[in-house]
Amino acid sequence: MQDKKNFGFGTQIRKSPYFNSTVKWGVTGFSVYNHMYIPRDFGCPEQNFWNLVNEAILCDVAVERQVEITGPDAAKFVQLLTPRDLSKLSVGQCKYVLIVNNEGGILNDPVLLRLKENHFWLSLADSDILLWAQGVAVNSKLDVKICEPDVSPLQLQGPNSGKIMEALFGKSIIDLKYYWFRELDLDGIPLIVSRTGWSSELGYELYLRDGSMGDKLWEKIMVAGKKFGIKPGHTSSIRRIEGGMLSYHADADINTNPYEVGLGRLVNLDIDANFVGKKALNLINVNGIKRKQVGVVLNCEPLTRPNTTFWEVTKNENVVGKITSAVYSPRLKKNIALAMISIEQSELNNELDVKINDKLVKATIVEKPFYDPQKKIASA
Amino acid sequence: MQDKKNFGFGTQIRKSPYFNSTVKWGVTGFSVYNHMYIPRDFGCPEQNFWNLVNEAILCDVAVERQVEITGPDAAKFVQLLTPRDLSKLSVGQCKYVLIVNNEGGILNDPVLLRLKENHFWLSLADSDILLWAQGVAVNSKLDVKICEPDVSPLQLQGPNSGKIMEALFGKSIIDLKYYWFRELDLDGIPLIVSRTGWSSELGYELYLRDGSMGDKLWEKIMVAGKKFGIKPGHTSSIRRIEGGMLSYHADADINTNPYEVGLGRLVNLDIDANFVGKKALNLINVNGIKRKQVGVVLNCEPLTRPNTTFWEVTKNENVVGKITSAVYSPRLKKNIALAMISIEQSELNNELDVKINDKLVKATIVEKPFYDPQKKIASA
Repeated sequence: MQDKKNFGFGTQIRKSPYFNSTVKWGVTGFSVYNHMYIPRDFGCPEQNFWNLVNEAILCDVAVERQVEITGPDAAKFVQLLTPRDLSKLSVGQCKYVLIVNNEGGILNDPVLLRLKENHFWLSLADSDILLWAQGVAVNSKLDVKICEPDVSPLQLQGPNSGKIMEALFGKSIIDLKYYWFRELDLDGIPLIVSRTGWSSELGYELYLRDGSMGDKLWEKIMVAGKKFGIKPGHTSSIRRIEGGMLSYHADADINTNPYEVGLGRLVNLDIDANFVGKKALNLINVNGIKRKQVGVVLNCEPLTRPNTTFWEVTKNENVVGKITSAVYSPRLKKNIALAMISIEQSELNNELDVKINDKLVKATIVEKPFYDPQKKIASA
Repeated sequence: MQDKKNFGFGTQIRKSPYFNSTVKWGVTGFSVYNHMYIPRDFGCPEQNFWNLVNEAILCDVAVERQVEITGPDAAKFVQLLTPRDLSKLSVGQCKYVLIVNNEGGILNDPVLLRLKENHFWLSLADSDILLWAQGVAVNSKLDVKICEPDVSPLQLQGPNSGKIMEALFGKSIIDLKYYWFRELDLDGIPLIVSRTGWSSELGYELYLRDGSMGDKLWEKIMVAGKKFGIKPGHTSSIRRIEGGMLSYHADADINTNPYEVGLGRLVNLDIDANFVGKKALNLINVNGIKRKQVGVVLNCEPLTRPNTTFWEVTKNENVVGKITSAVYSPRLKKNIALAMISIEQSELNNELDVKINDKLVKATIVEKPFYDPQKKIASA
């Protein structure tokens, strides 16, 4: 990172429209997500957490690429792509949905936005749903167009995010309800603005519809946010694990079904419409699951960083699962984790062993989310 | 990279079975490819190039994930996935193929291996072809099973790679022809071994079929290769650009068609079988292309590193294309690049301007590949 502006490994991985802004504002580390760089460090992940929960942070999440679905059969096709009942999805509304394959395995957990009757965006986690959707369309006999538009989201999250949005867009923005969006223009910058995020805090996403205006948008928000304590930031592993939110590839993958991660509420088997995976999910629902995601507290010294491999979980020396995401919460003063555990060993208060760098650590199954279990902060 | 063994951003990005070996052997930087870390630096990319062209390097390319296609209709389905005629593909043979969407846009450029009559692997570049293939299968009415098996390739490349393979597998390995493979066992390590690679040098790929044996395999090869000057390494941007080889997302993407990158030979429009994109590619073939990939020499001081953004190419101040991959070749003592240029400006010896960090640099269109134009080294 000596030469940040020219950071990169060739053009194979793309830079976001906010790349230069995040460099200017002090980014110290990037990861890669949907074939693009994503800021993952501004010097201190714990400080980023406190900035998020006490004031507000602005995060470059341009990596949340959009899959745009239009055409006369768009609504029918989008329902084919998800087990969630979309019959009551209004124009202007968002829904958190799962995309599953023919076996019911999770391929992505995007936010779906309905821009018009037959105009949708899937705002993606990290997998090429553009390819999946185009593949499903090939023999579907449905008349749809599927592409990746020039759309790059920012997340403005934290308790002061509402005040900053008001400073930018005026009083009326406060009426925007949780999981709804509006089409707005900020001094000529074309935007979709939604009350969504990935923090379990009050928050907004600003979907920039012209990649050439990235730095301009970033600076405008930082100026408006200054008196409300805004800081440049990144999605917080601490806060999202506290909130029990999934990170795709970590806590769920193509071999995980919705019931295993406690998202059966996103599967509506009783609707008339067909969707990919309906038969398989019906069977899983009837037969029951063999393993399940649980919350775990690790009884050891504070972890200095999130786990970078899946940690083996045992009971009486038998492998019963794996820790998928673990982190130290400075607010709860505990090591908290999400784990995938065999159903027989998944009851609350069960004590398990976790292998961390060849040492065994005691772990206890607890309720999740670890903080704000009713999710009242984000949806208030 | 202070704490290399624990390097990472959570479990969202996977580590290869060779991860610990590459750390032990001195890796200094990783990129991300197919949701996994890939070594991209062992301290000096130029030294890595000389190691490759003069002796041999061992590269962790576990990121080349395999899509396995089996079932009674596997052969028919694989032909549906690619415009290349597969009617003469034998068991034991590989082919370089393109995967395109319904519009003829390139989704990936894998190596296809036929393990049995109805058992195939697609050894991938960086995109989720597992999702594409499963999506195409949904309504195809073909009886196939599509998954990602536990297979992690290594590349052993360079003029001494044959001698090292002989030391490992005995004399008979020398008979293995270019783009053929064998199923082999190395002291209990199950492998597929092919005469393929991504270096334009003599080379082999070793597809490990048991991820738990990664470090064991790595060490065996390093021991056998010691007297032949083997070095740990990574795919060389210098050598692959010299060889005019594509890097997906850099030199081609979903909006690029096979004819634009000079790969019309991989499109067999005259076969009876149907394949995705046939109609669109036929139309492009009839109407001709509007832009084309060319080789370019940049007439400026030696580049200190590959470009990390697409550089704009102009002629008389009009934009006529972009530089997709550029690097300084210490052997040719020139800055060489691949560029996508409008067809009117794509003739040999045409002089163009390239904008690099706000400065204009003169560029000349030249023949490619830049080195070994007949590709005799790799196929000999």
